[in-house]
Amino acid sequence: METKTALTVRYAETDKMGIVHHSNYAIWFEIGRTDLIKRFGITYSAIEEMGIMLPLYELNCKYIAPAKYEDKIIVTTSIKEISRARISFSYKVCDSVTDKLLATGVTLHAWTDKNLKPINAEKIFPEIYSKLSSN
Amino acid sequence: METKTALTVRYAETDKMGIVHHSNYAIWFEIGRTDLIKRFGITYSAIEEMGIMLPLYELNCKYIAPAKYEDKIIVTTSIKEISRARISFSYKVCDSVTDKLLATGVTLHAWTDKNLKPINAEKIFPEIYSKLSSN
Amino acid sequence: METKTALTVRYAETDKMGIVHHSNYAIWFEIGRTDLIKRFGITYSAIEEMGIMLPLYELNCKYIAPAKYEDKIIVTTSIKEISRARISFSYKVCDSVTDKLLATGVTLHAWTDKNLKPINAEKIFPEIYSKLSSN
Amino acid sequence: METKTALTVRYAETDKMGIVHHSNYAIWFEIGRTDLIKRFGITYSAIEEMGIMLPLYELNCKYIAPAKYEDKIIVTTSIKEISRARISFSYKVCDSVTDKLLATGVTLHAWTDKNLKPINAEKIFPEIYSKLSSN
Repeated sequence: METKTALTVRYAETDKMGIVHHSNYAIWFEIGRTDLIKRFGITYSAIEEMGIMLPLYELNCKYIAPAKYEDKIIVTTSIKEISRARISFSYKVCDSVTDKLLATGVTLHAWTDKNLKPINAEKIFPEIYSKLSSN
Repeated sequence: METKTALTVRYAETDKMGIVHHSNYAIWFEIGRTDLIKRFGITYSAIEEMGIMLPLYELNCKYIAPAKYEDKIIVTTSIKEISRARISFSYKVCDSVTDKLLATGVTLHAWTDKNLKPINAEKIFPEIYSKLSSN
Repeated sequence: METKTALTVRYAETDKMGIVHHSNYAIWFEIGRTDLIKRFGITYSAIEEMGIMLPLYELNCKYIAPAKYEDKIIVTTSIKEISRARISFSYKVCDSVTDKLLATGVTLHAWTDKNLKPINAEKIFPEIYSKLSSN
Repeated sequence: METKTALTVRYAETDKMGIVHHSNYAIWFEIGRTDLIKRFGITYSAIEEMGIMLPLYELNCKYIAPAKYEDKIIVTTSIKEISRARISFSYKVCDSVTDKLLATGVTLHAWTDKNLKPINAEKIFPEIYSKLSSN
Protein backbone atom coordinates (compact mmCIF):
# COMPACT_ATOMS: atom_id res chain seq x y z
CA MET A 1 0.00 0.00 0.00
CA GLU A 2 1.16 3.50 -0.76
CA THR A 3 -0.35 6.98 -0.62
CA LYS A 4 0.11 9.91 -2.95
CA THR A 5 -0.04 13.34 -1.35
CA ALA A 6 -0.32 16.51 -3.44
CA LEU A 7 1.50 19.66 -2.32
CA THR A 8 2.16 23.08 -3.83
CA VAL A 9 5.55 24.60 -2.97
CA ARG A 10 5.17 27.47 -0.51
CA TYR A 11 7.13 30.71 -0.89
CA ALA A 12 8.43 30.29 2.67
CA GLU A 13 9.88 26.90 1.68
CA THR A 14 12.32 28.52 -0.78
CA ASP A 15 15.75 29.86 0.11
CA LYS A 16 18.13 32.40 -1.43
CA MET A 17 19.25 29.79 -3.98
CA GLY A 18 15.73 30.18 -5.41
CA ILE A 19 14.81 26.54 -4.72
CA VAL A 20 13.11 24.65 -1.91
CA HIS A 21 15.35 24.52 1.16
CA HIS A 22 16.44 20.92 1.74
CA SER A 23 15.07 20.83 5.31
CA ASN A 24 11.51 20.95 3.96
CA TYR A 25 11.68 17.48 2.45
CA ALA A 26 11.66 16.02 5.97
CA ILE A 27 8.44 17.97 6.56
CA TRP A 28 6.95 16.74 3.27
CA PHE A 29 7.83 13.15 4.22
CA GLU A 30 5.95 13.69 7.47
CA ILE A 31 2.87 14.89 5.58
CA GLY A 32 3.11 11.71 3.49
CA ARG A 33 3.33 9.59 6.66
CA THR A 34 0.28 11.35 8.12
CA ASP A 35 -1.69 10.48 4.97
CA LEU A 36 -0.46 6.89 4.83
CA ILE A 37 -1.45 6.21 8.44
CA LYS A 38 -4.89 7.74 7.79
CA ARG A 39 -5.33 5.21 5.01
CA PHE A 40 -5.18 2.45 7.63
CA GLY A 41 -8.28 3.88 9.27
CA ILE A 42 -6.46 5.57 12.15
CA THR A 43 -5.02 9.06 12.45
CA TYR A 44 -1.56 9.78 13.73
CA SER A 45 -3.21 12.27 16.13
CA ALA A 46 -5.24 9.40 17.58
CA ILE A 47 -2.13 7.23 17.94
CA GLU A 48 -0.44 10.03 19.90
CA GLU A 49 -3.54 10.53 22.06
CA MET A 50 -3.20 6.84 23.01
CA GLY A 51 0.24 7.81 24.35
CA ILE A 52 2.19 6.18 21.52
CA MET A 53 4.96 8.19 19.83
CA LEU A 54 6.96 7.56 16.67
CA PRO A 55 10.14 9.62 17.08
CA LEU A 56 12.70 9.42 14.28
CA TYR A 57 16.01 7.78 14.88
CA GLU A 58 17.26 8.15 11.32
CA LEU A 59 16.49 10.24 8.25
CA ASN A 60 17.98 9.85 4.80
CA CYS A 61 17.18 12.06 1.86
CA LYS A 62 18.62 12.06 -1.65
CA TYR A 63 18.05 15.27 -3.63
CA ILE A 64 17.87 14.62 -7.36
CA ALA A 65 16.44 17.81 -8.84
CA PRO A 66 15.31 21.07 -7.23
CA ALA A 67 11.69 22.08 -6.61
CA LYS A 68 10.63 25.70 -7.03
CA TYR A 69 7.95 28.05 -5.72
CA GLU A 70 4.42 27.10 -6.86
CA ASP A 71 5.61 23.74 -8.27
CA LYS A 72 3.03 20.99 -7.91
CA ILE A 73 4.52 18.09 -5.98
CA ILE A 74 3.45 14.50 -5.32
CA VAL A 75 4.87 12.67 -2.29
CA THR A 76 4.47 8.88 -2.55
CA THR A 77 4.77 7.16 0.83
CA SER A 78 4.92 3.50 1.79
CA ILE A 79 5.88 1.36 4.78
CA LYS A 80 9.32 -0.12 4.21
CA GLU A 81 9.61 -2.36 7.26
CA ILE A 82 7.74 -2.88 10.49
CA SER A 83 8.65 -4.71 13.66
CA ARG A 84 7.46 -4.59 17.29
CA ALA A 85 10.17 -2.06 18.10
CA ARG A 86 10.47 -0.07 14.90
CA ILE A 87 8.86 1.10 11.68
CA SER A 88 10.39 2.63 8.58
CA PHE A 89 8.83 4.50 5.69
CA SER A 90 10.09 5.26 2.20
CA TYR A 91 9.23 8.31 0.09
CA LYS A 92 9.42 9.50 -3.47
CA VAL A 93 8.96 13.19 -4.29
CA CYS A 94 7.96 13.96 -7.89
CA ASP A 95 6.96 17.01 -9.89
CA SER A 96 3.34 16.22 -10.70
CA VAL A 97 3.38 18.09 -14.01
CA THR A 98 6.59 16.69 -15.52
CA ASP A 99 6.58 13.46 -13.47
CA LYS A 100 10.27 14.10 -12.81
CA LEU A 101 11.72 12.44 -9.70
CA LEU A 102 12.98 15.19 -7.37
CA ALA A 103 13.97 13.30 -4.24
CA THR A 104 13.76 10.00 -2.42
CA GLY A 105 13.96 9.35 1.28
CA VAL A 106 13.70 6.92 4.15
CA THR A 107 12.78 7.57 7.79
CA LEU A 108 13.31 5.11 10.63
CA HIS A 109 11.15 5.42 13.75
CA ALA A 110 10.95 3.76 17.14
CA TRP A 111 7.66 2.90 18.84
CA THR A 112 7.77 4.67 22.20
CA ASP A 113 5.54 5.84 25.01
CA LYS A 114 5.00 9.51 25.91
CA ASN A 115 8.34 9.62 27.71
CA LEU A 116 10.08 8.32 24.58
CA LYS A 117 10.76 4.92 26.21
CA PRO A 118 10.66 1.98 23.77
CA ILE A 119 7.47 -0.07 23.72
CA ASN A 120 6.42 -3.35 22.09
CA ALA A 121 3.97 -2.16 19.44
CA GLU A 122 2.37 -5.56 18.94
CA LYS A 123 1.63 -5.91 22.63
CA ILE A 124 0.49 -2.36 23.34
CA PHE A 125 -1.87 -1.87 20.38
CA PRO A 126 -2.28 -5.27 18.68
CA GLU A 127 -5.07 -4.11 16.37
CA ILE A 128 -3.22 -1.18 14.80
CA TYR A 129 -0.01 -3.19 14.65
CA SER A 130 -1.75 -6.00 12.85
CA LYS A 131 -3.25 -3.59 10.29
CA LEU A 132 0.07 -1.90 9.59
CA SER A 133 2.04 -5.13 9.36
CA SER A 134 -0.44 -7.01 7.19
CA ASN A 135 0.36 -4.37 4.57
CA MET B 1 14.64 46.64 31.70
CA GLU B 2 15.51 45.37 28.26
CA THR B 3 17.66 42.58 26.84
CA LYS B 4 19.79 42.51 23.74
CA THR B 5 20.03 39.16 21.95
CA ALA B 6 22.62 38.54 19.22
CA LEU B 7 21.71 36.38 16.21
CA THR B 8 23.36 35.50 12.91
CA VAL B 9 20.96 35.08 9.97
CA ARG B 10 20.63 31.40 9.01
CA TYR B 11 20.60 30.30 5.36
CA ALA B 12 17.30 28.51 5.99
CA GLU B 13 15.77 31.82 7.10
CA THR B 14 16.20 33.34 3.64
CA ASP B 15 13.71 33.02 0.80
CA LYS B 16 13.89 33.32 -2.99
CA MET B 17 13.84 37.11 -2.70
CA GLY B 18 17.33 36.70 -1.19
CA ILE B 19 16.30 38.19 2.15
CA VAL B 20 15.05 36.85 5.48
CA HIS B 21 11.50 35.53 5.13
CA HIS B 22 9.17 37.76 7.15
CA SER B 23 7.81 34.85 9.25
CA ASN B 24 11.19 34.53 10.98
CA TYR B 25 10.86 37.84 12.80
CA ALA B 26 8.14 36.28 14.98
CA ILE B 27 10.67 33.57 15.86
CA TRP B 28 13.38 36.15 16.61
CA PHE B 29 10.96 38.05 18.86
CA GLU B 30 10.37 34.79 20.73
CA ILE B 31 14.12 34.33 21.26
CA GLY B 32 14.23 37.87 22.64
CA ARG B 33 11.35 37.06 25.01
CA THR B 34 13.12 33.92 26.21
CA ASP B 35 16.19 36.01 27.05
CA LEU B 36 14.23 38.77 28.74
CA ILE B 37 12.39 36.34 31.01
CA LYS B 38 15.70 34.68 31.92
CA ARG B 39 16.93 38.09 33.09
CA PHE B 40 14.23 38.04 35.78
CA GLY B 41 15.81 34.94 37.28
CA ILE B 42 13.28 32.46 35.87
CA THR B 43 13.26 30.55 32.59
CA TYR B 44 10.28 30.35 30.30
CA SER B 45 10.75 26.55 30.39
CA ALA B 46 10.27 26.66 34.17
CA ILE B 47 7.15 28.81 33.82
CA GLU B 48 5.68 26.24 31.42
CA GLU B 49 6.62 23.40 33.75
CA MET B 50 4.53 25.16 36.43
CA GLY B 51 1.62 24.79 33.99
CA ILE B 52 1.53 28.44 32.97
CA MET B 53 1.36 29.29 29.26
CA LEU B 54 1.75 32.56 27.41
CA PRO B 55 -0.01 32.03 24.07
CA LEU B 56 -0.07 34.99 21.65
CA TYR B 57 -3.31 36.71 20.90
CA GLU B 58 -1.79 39.38 18.68
CA LEU B 59 1.39 39.94 16.71
CA ASN B 60 2.43 43.10 14.90
CA CYS B 61 5.60 43.51 12.91
CA LYS B 62 6.83 46.46 10.86
CA TYR B 63 9.56 45.63 8.33
CA ILE B 64 11.84 48.59 7.69
CA ALA B 65 14.86 47.12 5.89
CA PRO B 66 15.71 43.56 4.85
CA ALA B 67 18.18 41.27 6.64
CA LYS B 68 20.40 38.94 4.64
CA TYR B 69 22.21 35.63 5.13
CA GLU B 70 25.07 35.86 7.67
CA ASP B 71 24.00 39.34 8.81
CA LYS B 72 24.64 39.96 12.50
CA ILE B 73 21.40 40.95 14.21
CA ILE B 74 20.52 42.39 17.62
CA VAL B 75 17.00 41.89 18.99
CA THR B 76 16.17 44.32 21.80
CA THR B 77 13.23 43.17 23.92
CA SER B 78 11.28 44.84 26.69
CA ILE B 79 7.99 44.42 28.54
CA LYS B 80 5.46 46.90 27.21
CA GLU B 81 2.56 46.29 29.58
CA ILE B 82 1.64 43.74 32.18
CA SER B 83 -1.64 42.99 33.91
CA ARG B 84 -3.09 39.99 35.76
CA ALA B 85 -4.63 38.72 32.54
CA ARG B 86 -2.12 39.78 29.90
CA ILE B 87 1.44 40.76 29.07
CA SER B 88 2.89 42.49 26.00
CA PHE B 89 6.43 42.80 24.77
CA SER B 90 8.03 45.19 22.29
CA TYR B 91 10.98 44.46 20.03
CA LYS B 92 13.53 46.26 17.91
CA VAL B 93 15.60 44.34 15.36
CA CYS B 94 18.85 46.04 14.29
CA ASP B 95 21.84 45.19 12.15
CA SER B 96 24.59 45.02 14.74
CA VAL B 97 27.31 46.19 12.32
CA THR B 98 25.56 49.19 10.77
CA ASP B 99 23.18 49.79 13.71
CA LYS B 100 20.42 50.17 11.11
CA LEU B 101 16.88 49.53 12.37
CA LEU B 102 15.45 46.59 10.40
CA ALA B 103 12.13 45.91 12.11
CA THR B 104 10.01 46.65 15.15
CA GLY B 105 7.30 44.54 16.68
CA VAL B 106 4.84 43.98 19.47
CA THR B 107 3.38 40.72 20.77
CA LEU B 108 0.38 40.46 23.08
CA HIS B 109 -0.01 37.37 25.25
CA ALA B 110 -2.58 35.97 27.65
CA TRP B 111 -1.69 34.23 30.91
CA THR B 112 -3.30 30.79 30.69
CA ASP B 113 -3.15 27.34 32.19
CA LYS B 114 -2.10 24.22 30.26
CA ASN B 115 -5.51 24.01 28.64
CA LEU B 116 -5.19 27.60 27.43
CA LYS B 117 -7.84 28.82 29.90
CA PRO B 118 -7.20 32.37 31.25
CA ILE B 119 -5.65 32.64 34.70
CA ASN B 120 -4.99 35.49 37.12
CA ALA B 121 -1.21 35.76 36.99
CA GLU B 122 -0.94 37.72 40.22
CA LYS B 123 -2.90 35.11 42.14
CA ILE B 124 -1.35 31.99 40.60
CA PHE B 125 2.33 32.96 40.81
CA PRO B 126 2.58 36.14 42.91
CA GLU B 127 6.37 36.07 43.13
CA ILE B 128 7.06 35.98 39.39
CA TYR B 129 4.25 38.42 38.71
CA SER B 130 5.66 40.87 41.20
CA LYS B 131 9.14 40.63 39.63
CA LEU B 132 7.84 41.18 36.11
CA SER B 133 5.53 44.04 37.03
CA SER B 134 7.99 45.92 39.23
CA ASN B 135 10.01 46.35 36.08
CA MET C 1 -13.12 38.86 -4.90
CA GLU C 2 -11.78 36.42 -2.35
CA THR C 3 -10.19 32.97 -2.43
CA LYS C 4 -10.58 30.08 -0.06
CA THR C 5 -7.51 27.89 0.40
CA ALA C 6 -7.72 24.52 2.17
CA LEU C 7 -4.83 23.36 4.37
CA THR C 8 -4.23 20.49 6.77
CA VAL C 9 -2.09 21.33 9.81
CA ARG C 10 1.38 19.76 9.52
CA TYR C 11 3.07 18.10 12.48
CA ALA C 12 6.09 20.37 11.98
CA GLU C 13 3.82 23.39 12.40
CA THR C 14 3.03 22.48 16.01
CA ASP C 15 5.11 23.50 19.01
CA LYS C 16 5.55 22.18 22.55
CA MET C 17 2.31 23.88 23.61
CA GLY C 18 0.63 21.27 21.37
CA ILE C 19 -0.81 23.89 19.01
CA VAL C 20 0.26 25.52 15.75
CA HIS C 21 3.20 27.88 16.34
CA HIS C 22 2.07 31.45 15.71
CA SER C 23 4.76 32.11 13.08
CA ASN C 24 3.01 29.71 10.70
CA TYR C 25 0.01 31.96 10.21
CA ALA C 26 2.23 34.37 8.23
CA ILE C 27 3.08 31.41 5.98
CA TRP C 28 -0.59 30.45 5.64
CA PHE C 29 -1.45 34.04 4.71
CA GLU C 30 1.22 33.83 1.99
CA ILE C 31 -0.36 30.65 0.60
CA GLY C 32 -3.68 32.49 0.50
CA ARG C 33 -2.05 35.42 -1.37
CA THR C 34 -0.51 33.01 -3.89
CA ASP C 35 -3.97 31.57 -4.56
CA LEU C 36 -5.69 34.95 -4.77
CA ILE C 37 -3.18 36.26 -7.32
CA LYS C 38 -3.62 33.09 -9.39
CA ARG C 39 -7.34 33.84 -9.53
CA PHE C 40 -6.50 37.02 -11.47
CA GLY C 41 -4.96 34.92 -14.24
CA ILE C 42 -1.33 35.55 -13.27
CA THR C 43 0.96 33.66 -10.92
CA TYR C 44 3.06 35.32 -8.27
CA SER C 45 6.02 33.38 -9.74
CA ALA C 46 5.40 35.12 -13.09
CA ILE C 47 5.20 38.54 -11.39
CA GLU C 48 8.58 37.91 -9.77
CA GLU C 49 10.05 36.72 -13.06
CA MET C 50 9.06 40.13 -14.48
CA GLY C 51 11.32 41.60 -11.78
CA ILE C 52 8.48 42.82 -9.58
CA MET C 53 8.60 42.05 -5.86
CA LEU C 54 6.02 42.44 -3.13
CA PRO C 55 8.01 42.59 0.13
CA LEU C 56 6.03 43.04 3.35
CA TYR C 57 6.34 46.22 5.30
CA GLU C 58 3.78 45.28 7.91
CA LEU C 59 2.12 42.17 9.28
CA ASN C 60 -0.70 41.98 11.79
CA CYS C 61 -2.19 38.80 13.12
CA LYS C 62 -4.89 38.27 15.76
CA TYR C 63 -5.02 34.77 17.23
CA ILE C 64 -8.51 33.84 18.36
CA ALA C 65 -8.39 30.07 18.90
CA PRO C 66 -5.60 27.52 18.47
CA ALA C 67 -5.27 25.11 15.55
CA LYS C 68 -3.99 21.58 16.15
CA TYR C 69 -2.20 18.86 14.19
CA GLU C 70 -4.30 17.40 11.35
CA ASP C 71 -6.97 20.12 11.71
CA LYS C 72 -8.55 21.12 8.41
CA ILE C 73 -8.13 24.83 7.84
CA ILE C 74 -9.61 27.34 5.38
CA VAL C 75 -7.71 30.57 4.68
CA THR C 76 -9.94 33.24 3.09
CA THR C 77 -7.92 35.95 1.34
CA SER C 78 -8.94 39.24 -0.23
CA ILE C 79 -7.33 42.46 -1.40
CA LYS C 80 -7.90 45.16 1.18
CA GLU C 81 -6.44 48.17 -0.61
CA ILE C 82 -4.34 48.79 -3.68
CA SER C 83 -2.43 51.83 -4.88
CA ARG C 84 0.45 52.45 -7.29
CA ALA C 85 2.93 52.10 -4.44
CA ARG C 86 1.32 49.54 -2.18
CA ILE C 87 -1.10 46.67 -1.80
CA SER C 88 -2.64 45.12 1.30
CA PHE C 89 -4.42 41.83 1.83
CA SER C 90 -6.71 40.63 4.58
CA TYR C 91 -7.10 37.07 5.81
CA LYS C 92 -9.45 34.93 7.84
CA VAL C 93 -8.35 31.52 9.11
CA CYS C 94 -11.17 29.12 10.02
CA ASP C 95 -11.49 25.51 11.08
CA SER C 96 -13.26 23.99 8.09
CA VAL C 97 -15.08 21.37 10.14
CA THR C 98 -16.45 23.55 12.95
CA ASP C 99 -16.39 26.81 10.96
CA LYS C 100 -14.80 28.41 14.02
CA LEU C 101 -12.75 31.56 13.36
CA LEU C 102 -9.16 30.90 14.47
CA ALA C 103 -7.29 34.00 13.34
CA THR C 104 -7.50 37.13 11.25
CA GLY C 105 -4.68 39.06 9.66
CA VAL C 106 -3.55 41.87 7.42
CA THR C 107 -0.33 42.18 5.41
CA LEU C 108 0.90 45.40 3.81
CA HIS C 109 3.27 45.19 0.84
CA ALA C 110 5.24 47.62 -1.31
CA TRP C 111 5.60 47.24 -5.08
CA THR C 112 9.36 47.10 -5.71
CA ASP C 113 11.88 46.04 -8.31
CA LYS C 114 14.38 43.22 -7.81
CA ASN C 115 16.58 45.46 -5.69
CA LEU C 116 13.63 46.25 -3.43
CA LYS C 117 13.41 49.83 -4.74
CA PRO C 118 9.84 51.23 -4.89
CA ILE C 119 8.13 51.21 -8.28
CA ASN C 120 4.91 52.66 -9.68
CA ALA C 121 2.83 49.53 -10.23
CA GLU C 122 0.37 51.20 -12.59
CA LYS C 123 3.16 52.41 -14.86
CA ILE C 124 5.33 49.29 -14.80
CA PHE C 125 2.63 46.66 -15.41
CA PRO C 126 -0.59 48.48 -16.29
CA GLU C 127 -2.46 45.33 -17.28
CA ILE C 128 -1.95 43.44 -14.03
CA TYR C 129 -2.48 46.60 -12.00
CA SER C 130 -5.76 47.26 -13.73
CA LYS C 131 -6.95 43.70 -13.11
CA LEU C 132 -6.06 43.82 -9.42
CA SER C 133 -7.52 47.27 -8.81
CA SER C 134 -10.77 46.70 -10.69
CA ASN C 135 -11.49 44.09 -8.05
CA MET D 1 39.95 21.16 11.27
CA GLU D 2 36.57 21.37 12.94
CA THR D 3 34.38 24.12 14.30
CA LYS D 4 32.14 24.16 17.34
CA THR D 5 28.99 26.25 17.07
CA ALA D 6 26.88 27.08 20.13
CA LEU D 7 23.09 27.22 19.81
CA THR D 8 20.18 27.56 22.22
CA VAL D 9 17.03 25.63 21.26
CA ARG D 10 14.30 27.99 20.06
CA TYR D 11 10.67 27.53 21.11
CA ALA D 12 9.65 27.46 17.43
CA GLU D 13 12.00 24.49 16.90
CA THR D 14 9.94 22.27 19.21
CA ASP D 15 6.92 20.24 18.14
CA LYS D 16 3.91 18.75 19.96
CA MET D 17 6.08 15.83 21.16
CA GLY D 18 7.78 18.48 23.34
CA ILE D 19 11.17 17.99 21.66
CA VAL D 20 13.04 19.62 18.76
CA HIS D 21 11.41 18.71 15.44
CA HIS D 22 13.79 16.51 13.46
CA SER D 23 13.82 18.84 10.42
CA ASN D 24 15.75 21.44 12.45
CA TYR D 25 18.91 19.35 12.61
CA ALA D 26 19.44 19.97 8.87
CA ILE D 27 19.28 23.69 9.67
CA TRP D 28 21.71 23.32 12.57
CA PHE D 29 24.12 21.42 10.30
CA GLU D 30 23.93 24.34 7.87
CA ILE D 31 24.83 26.78 10.64
CA GLY D 32 27.83 24.55 11.43
CA ARG D 33 28.86 24.60 7.74
CA THR D 34 28.59 28.39 7.64
CA ASP D 35 30.93 28.61 10.63
CA LEU D 36 33.40 26.05 9.29
CA ILE D 37 33.72 27.85 5.95
CA LYS D 38 34.26 31.14 7.78
CA ARG D 39 37.19 29.52 9.56
CA PHE D 40 38.92 29.16 6.18
CA GLY D 41 38.90 32.93 5.78
CA ILE D 42 35.99 33.08 3.34
CA THR D 43 32.27 33.40 3.96
CA TYR D 44 29.68 31.21 2.33
CA SER D 45 27.91 34.44 1.32
CA ALA D 46 31.05 35.48 -0.60
CA ILE D 47 31.26 32.07 -2.30
CA GLU D 48 27.66 32.46 -3.48
CA GLU D 49 28.33 36.02 -4.66
CA MET D 50 31.06 34.53 -6.87
CA GLY D 51 28.29 32.47 -8.47
CA ILE D 52 29.26 29.19 -6.80
CA MET D 53 26.55 27.12 -5.14
CA LEU D 54 26.72 24.09 -2.88
CA PRO D 55 23.32 22.39 -3.20
CA LEU D 56 22.80 19.20 -1.20
CA TYR D 57 22.42 15.93 -2.99
CA GLU D 58 22.21 13.82 0.15
CA LEU D 59 21.46 14.27 3.82
CA ASN D 60 21.74 11.69 6.56
CA CYS D 61 20.87 12.26 10.18
CA LYS D 62 20.88 9.84 13.11
CA TYR D 63 18.87 10.98 16.13
CA ILE D 64 20.26 9.60 19.37
CA ALA D 65 18.57 11.63 22.11
CA PRO D 66 16.07 14.48 21.98
CA ALA D 67 16.88 18.15 22.50
CA LYS D 68 14.43 20.40 24.34
CA TYR D 69 13.50 24.08 24.49
CA GLU D 70 16.29 26.28 25.93
CA ASP D 71 18.82 23.41 25.84
CA LYS D 72 22.35 24.57 25.09
CA ILE D 73 23.67 22.77 22.01
CA ILE D 74 27.10 22.41 20.40
CA VAL D 75 27.32 21.50 16.71
CA THR D 76 30.77 20.18 15.74
CA THR D 77 31.39 20.37 11.98
CA SER D 78 34.20 19.06 9.82
CA ILE D 79 34.92 18.38 6.16
CA LYS D 80 34.56 14.68 5.47
CA GLU D 81 35.71 14.53 1.86
CA ILE D 82 36.42 17.00 -0.89
CA SER D 83 36.87 16.56 -4.64
CA ARG D 84 36.61 18.83 -7.67
CA ALA D 85 32.96 17.87 -8.10
CA ARG D 86 31.79 17.37 -4.56
CA ILE D 87 32.26 18.11 -0.88
CA SER D 88 30.84 16.39 2.19
CA PHE D 89 30.64 17.50 5.78
CA SER D 90 30.07 15.56 9.00
CA TYR D 91 28.37 16.82 12.13
CA LYS D 92 27.98 15.95 15.78
CA VAL D 93 25.26 17.58 17.89
CA CYS D 94 25.84 17.52 21.65
CA ASP D 95 24.17 18.94 24.72
CA SER D 96 26.79 21.40 25.94
CA VAL D 97 25.87 21.00 29.61
CA THR D 98 25.76 17.21 29.86
CA ASP D 99 28.08 16.57 26.89
CA LYS D 100 25.55 13.94 25.75
CA LEU D 101 25.61 13.11 22.04
CA LEU D 102 22.19 13.96 20.58
CA ALA D 103 22.66 13.42 16.85
CA THR D 104 25.19 12.85 14.10
CA GLY D 105 24.89 13.66 10.44
CA VAL D 106 26.48 13.86 7.04
CA THR D 107 25.63 16.15 4.12
CA LEU D 108 26.88 15.66 0.56
CA HIS D 109 27.05 18.66 -1.77
CA ALA D 110 27.86 19.30 -5.40
CA TRP D 111 29.89 22.30 -6.60
CA THR D 112 27.65 24.09 -9.09
CA ASP D 113 27.18 27.41 -10.82
CA LYS D 114 24.16 29.68 -10.26
CA ASN D 115 22.06 27.52 -12.56
CA LEU D 116 22.92 24.45 -10.51
CA LYS D 117 25.13 23.03 -13.29
CA PRO D 118 28.18 21.07 -12.03
CA ILE D 119 31.51 22.89 -12.03
CA ASN D 120 35.12 21.87 -11.44
CA ALA D 121 35.86 23.53 -8.12
CA GLU D 122 39.63 23.31 -8.49
CA LYS D 123 39.53 25.06 -11.84
CA ILE D 124 36.96 27.72 -11.02
CA PHE D 125 38.32 28.91 -7.66
CA PRO D 126 41.75 27.30 -7.16
CA GLU D 127 42.61 29.33 -4.10
CA ILE D 128 39.55 28.44 -2.04
CA TYR D 129 39.69 24.85 -3.25
CA SER D 130 43.29 24.53 -2.19
CA LYS D 131 42.51 25.93 1.26
CA LEU D 132 39.58 23.58 1.81
CA SER D 133 41.38 20.49 0.52
CA SER D 134 44.63 21.09 2.40
CA ASN D 135 42.57 20.65 5.53
